[in-house]
Amino acid sequence: MRDVAIIGIGMNKWGELWSDSLRDIFVTAALPAIKDAGVKGIDSMYIGCMSSGLFVGQEHIASLLADYLGVLPASATRVESACASGGLALRCGWLDVASGESDIVLVSGVEKMTDVGGDEATYALSTAADMEYEAYNGATFPGLYALVARDHMRRYGTTPEMLAEVAVKNHWHGSRNPNAQFQMEITREQVLGSVMVADPLHILDCSPITDGAAAAILCPLEMAKDLTDKPIVKISGIASATDSIQIAHRDDLCAFNAVKVSAEKAMAKAEKKHADIDLIEAHDCFTIAEICVLEAMGFFKPGEAGPATLEGVTRRGGRIPVNVSGGLKSKGHPVGATGIGQIYELVKQLRGDADERQVEGAKCGLAQNMGGTGGSSVATILEVVE
Amino acid sequence: MRDVAIIGIGMNKWGELWSDSLRDIFVTAALPAIKDAGVKGIDSMYIGCMSSGLFVGQEHIASLLADYLGVLPASATRVESACASGGLALRCGWLDVASGESDIVLVSGVEKMTDVGGDEATYALSTAADMEYEAYNGATFPGLYALVARDHMRRYGTTPEMLAEVAVKNHWHGSRNPNAQFQMEITREQVLGSVMVADPLHILDCSPITDGAAAAILCPLEMAKDLTDKPIVKISGIASATDSIQIAHRDDLCAFNAVKVSAEKAMAKAEKKHADIDLIEAHDCFTIAEICVLEAMGFFKPGEAGPATLEGVTRRGGRIPVNVSGGLKSKGHPVGATGIGQIYELVKQLRGDADERQVEGAKCGLAQNMGGTGGSSVATILEVVE
Repeated sequence: MRDVAIIGIGMNKWGELWSDSLRDIFVTAALPAIKDAGVKGIDSMYIGCMSSGLFVGQEHIASLLADYLGVLPASATRVESACASGGLALRCGWLDVASGESDIVLVSGVEKMTDVGGDEATYALSTAADMEYEAYNGATFPGLYALVARDHMRRYGTTPEMLAEVAVKNHWHGSRNPNAQFQMEITREQVLGSVMVADPLHILDCSPITDGAAAAILCPLEMAKDLTDKPIVKISGIASATDSIQIAHRDDLCAFNAVKVSAEKAMAKAEKKHADIDLIEAHDCFTIAEICVLEAMGFFKPGEAGPATLEGVTRRGGRIPVNVSGGLKSKGHPVGATGIGQIYELVKQLRGDADERQVEGAKCGLAQNMGGTGGSSVATILEVVE
Repeated sequence: MRDVAIIGIGMNKWGELWSDSLRDIFVTAALPAIKDAGVKGIDSMYIGCMSSGLFVGQEHIASLLADYLGVLPASATRVESACASGGLALRCGWLDVASGESDIVLVSGVEKMTDVGGDEATYALSTAADMEYEAYNGATFPGLYALVARDHMRRYGTTPEMLAEVAVKNHWHGSRNPNAQFQMEITREQVLGSVMVADPLHILDCSPITDGAAAAILCPLEMAKDLTDKPIVKISGIASATDSIQIAHRDDLCAFNAVKVSAEKAMAKAEKKHADIDLIEAHDCFTIAEICVLEAMGFFKPGEAGPATLEGVTRRGGRIPVNVSGGLKSKGHPVGATGIGQIYELVKQLRGDADERQVEGAKCGLAQNMGGTGGSSVATILEVVE
């Protein structure tokens, strides 16, 4: 199996991109990635996208986007696993290069979510839950994560203030990210005073509806030095895992087993311990999610991520910075793009190219991207090659 | 790169499966494949599915189906490329084994199409075309393929009788397939007398709406002999390619360049010439499609596949049997499952296990699976290992 490097990244400014279609949004991330890598063409591409069918009435998008990007007849594949679509697209692209089949591979995530109304967007997103047993019975994602939050509060004493601090931290981070959807800081009082969506989750505990895309160019590590003068970032470990997408099937609402398993496998492949990780991009679709996934991955014991967040441990400058990009909460959450957006941020940081949000001395980062309430999860360890 | 074998296959009877949900349909193909392979568990799975979002209101299906199959927390990935979703799922599974990442991989295709009405099904299928430039302007697939057929007739003298004979042949084949949706023979007069859908395509020139699934188990070739006593089938070559999904972008309506490129690449990898191929499963979503793809792959010169069909060259017993399973026309076309359904048939044939539809002495077969009007195509060469 060949080692795989990331030699180019691109993303656009995320937000409500009224004047851009799905295909425009994709190319405005893919072209900068190709330019950043300095490659002339690509052998193969993988697109993470959750529901172009329900959001914009278009399937078969990998070929459509290959055409719009001008790379026909290259192999093109769309990958879907709800909000983990981007992470799984990266895993497929990694397999394509690692196997020896392709040398230059584009991986991207894209979602255009604002062309439908709020009810339709809620319906489309709820198809990431078990429709027959959850959504058709009235449980959409804020409600499902509220159940998780209630259980976490009951068992571990987690408080609404701890949840709110996740949002405050991520907005503080995102206010330094020119590509973030919401570049304003917020206060704990604003979060706790914002409208309640599903008790205990306020609207400012929830990630937004977003249009956006991100892209990365992969190649064999041994080829990377000849292709780029920039610092080379290696995929040291990547793994995906699954859990029941229906939370009623689980023994423990707060355990997020797919997250645990994917992170354990990725860290084992990369031969890394928790202390080796300099920063994390974690899947904070709701504030409680960031707390649960940090605990599931073993960075904190169950019940300890909330207090640690209050103490600033996960802020930039803290012991283990989490979501210095702004995370899903502030940077935005174009569902299929999020997993590649995390990779964009880690590569920026590992290159030392993240400007005023730079984590000093970052050499190794972890991205954790999940679908639904953790029915799927992908963990990726990136390292800068000295 | 490791050589990859197929050691297990499964499918259910395709048709209008009113009493089965998407998840039931999947497991009734996946479980027989696992049993056929004699394996205890799987490391990873790939699901080809075009539009579970629009057909049954459910995305995130790879995790859902992994749960229903009882293989959590195995890695699970859904792959989409319209009607080529199954073929691309096979390619991803092949990369997973070839790279050395996984040993036992399930690849499957599934589609549940009959839970929506006819208008909704037509809409869902049209999302495989370019919605902004084709479907929203009124062009659905029968119309698009009728344009191709008209061009082929004008340039090469192809006749409605030649098109009809594709359907007659495939129904004759499918009448020997207990898993086929339509197991009755039809006559050329019946095809030509059937209702016109989009001139020159009658309803009996069109593949049907179908529920169904198929599955295959992959493993490293070197491991196959220890796992199964059945004849071992090797993936000798697999390749995918893309074309504009919008036919107005093409220089030649009849050329199907993605089909040409994918077949050339797969045959080069397998080191096979046309004469080495004993049988073909081709993507006959419409009768004209079978003619065009046989020509695009170089088995016939442009304009010669129609007359050859009339002469029986592509019948079982002819020089190069095409769609002895019944093809999409008679076996059915559950869009995301079709590519794996083709693999099921080739493995049955190469094992010498196809009963009364057996192609005598079949050692090497080609499957060609495409999306839309050829916007994506996957070609796969399978060979029995002596």
